[in-house]
Amino acid sequence: MSQIEFWFEFASTYSHIAAQLVEAEAATRQVEVVWRPFLLGPIFREQGLSDSPFNLNRVKGDYMWRDVARECERLDVPFRRPGQFPRNGLLAARISTAGEGQDWMPAFVRGVYRANFVEDLDISNVAVLEQALIEAGAPDPGMILEDAGSDGVKRKLRHRTDEAMQLGIFGAPSFRVGKELFWGGDRLQQALDLAERR
Amino acid sequence: MSQIEFWFEFASTYSHIAAQLVEAEAATRQVEVVWRPFLLGPIFREQGLSDSPFNLNRVKGDYMWRDVARECERLDVPFRRPGQFPRNGLLAARISTAGEGQDWMPAFVRGVYRANFVEDLDISNVAVLEQALIEAGAPDPGMILEDAGSDGVKRKLRHRTDEAMQLGIFGAPSFRVGKELFWGGDRLQQALDLAERR
Repeated sequence: MSQIEFWFEFASTYSHIAAQLVEAEAATRQVEVVWRPFLLGPIFREQGLSDSPFNLNRVKGDYMWRDVARECERLDVPFRRPGQFPRNGLLAARISTAGEGQDWMPAFVRGVYRANFVEDLDISNVAVLEQALIEAGAPDPGMILEDAGSDGVKRKLRHRTDEAMQLGIFGAPSFRVGKELFWGGDRLQQALDLAERR
Repeated sequence: MSQIEFWFEFASTYSHIAAQLVEAEAATRQVEVVWRPFLLGPIFREQGLSDSPFNLNRVKGDYMWRDVARECERLDVPFRRPGQFPRNGLLAARISTAGEGQDWMPAFVRGVYRANFVEDLDISNVAVLEQALIEAGAPDPGMILEDAGSDGVKRKLRHRTDEAMQLGIFGAPSFRVGKELFWGGDRLQQALDLAERR
C-alpha cells in the first residue's frame, strides 16, 4: 500500500482541517496515512520568528482567520475561532509521539484539534488531553500520559522535529510522498495523486 | 456579469500561473476578470521585509521553486526557473496600469510573465516590454510606453498599491469578489465559486 506522511503541529489552524480530512481522503485512494507529530516552535525560532507568523503579521493573521472559517464551511469541518492562539501543543505532541503506530492515535489527534479549534479548550491542560484519550478509545490513558512524560518520548519528539527540519519542512501541515514535500492543506490532493501513482 | 478582481505583481511566480489561467477559468463560469496590477515591494517594506520572503527564507524558497515547477507541469503552464529573482516589474506594472480596460492588457500581462518565467528575459528592459506590447496587439506601443512614464500613470499605480494595502492584500496573486479576499492561486476556484453564486 502506498503511503503519505502527514506532518502536523497542534497549534496550526490549517493542520486542524487536514487532520480531520486526511484519513478519509487517503482511504478513497487506497493510500495509508503515516501520522508525524512535530513542533513548529523550534523551526520558527530557527527562522528568527518569536511567535506565529499570523500573530507577527496582523493583516495576514486577519486573512487567515477568515480563510480558515470559509474553508471549514466549504469542507464541512467544524470550526470556532479559539480565544487563545497559538495554544501550547507540546504535551499533545508528546502523547501523539508515544502513540505512533497505535490504533487510537489518529482519533486522539483529531479530538485534540476539535478541543482547540471547535470547543475552545486549553490543549495544554492534562485533563483535556486525558478526555481526548478516553474518547479516542486509548486502552490506558494514565499509562500513556506517564509514557508521554518519559525521556524516551521527549527525545523521540525532538528527533522528529530535527527530522522535519532536515526534510525542509518549514510549516504545517506538510505532506511527504517518497522524496516529494508538499506544504499546506491546499496540496493534499496533489500529494495523494502522487501517492496513488507510485 | 459577475466579476473577479485579479491582483497581480510581476515578480511573483504564483501570479504567473494565475495570470495564464484566470481568464479561461473565469470564462467557463461566465465571470469577468478585472485585472489589477499593483506593487508588492511597498507592502513587503511595510511588513519589514527587504526582499522576497522566498529569498529571505531559503528553505521556503527552495520549496517554492519545486512547488511552482510541479504546479506548472500539472496545470500545463510553461515554466523555466529564471536566472534572476525577483525581477523589477515596475515599468511592466506601469504599462499595465496605462492599459487598464484596454483589450491588449491581459495578453500583455501574460506575455510579460512568459518573458520572465519561461524565456528568462529581463522584464525591466524596455525592448522586452515593447515586444510584449507588439505581440499583445497593442495599437501604438511607443505611445503606450510614453503614457506609462507619465505622472498620471505613476500616481494611478501608487494609488492601486495603497488600495491593495487598504483591502488587506499582503501577497500575490490575490483575488477579490465583492468584499471577500482570497490569497494565492490555490484559492482561484473558491473565488470563482463565490463570483458564480452572486
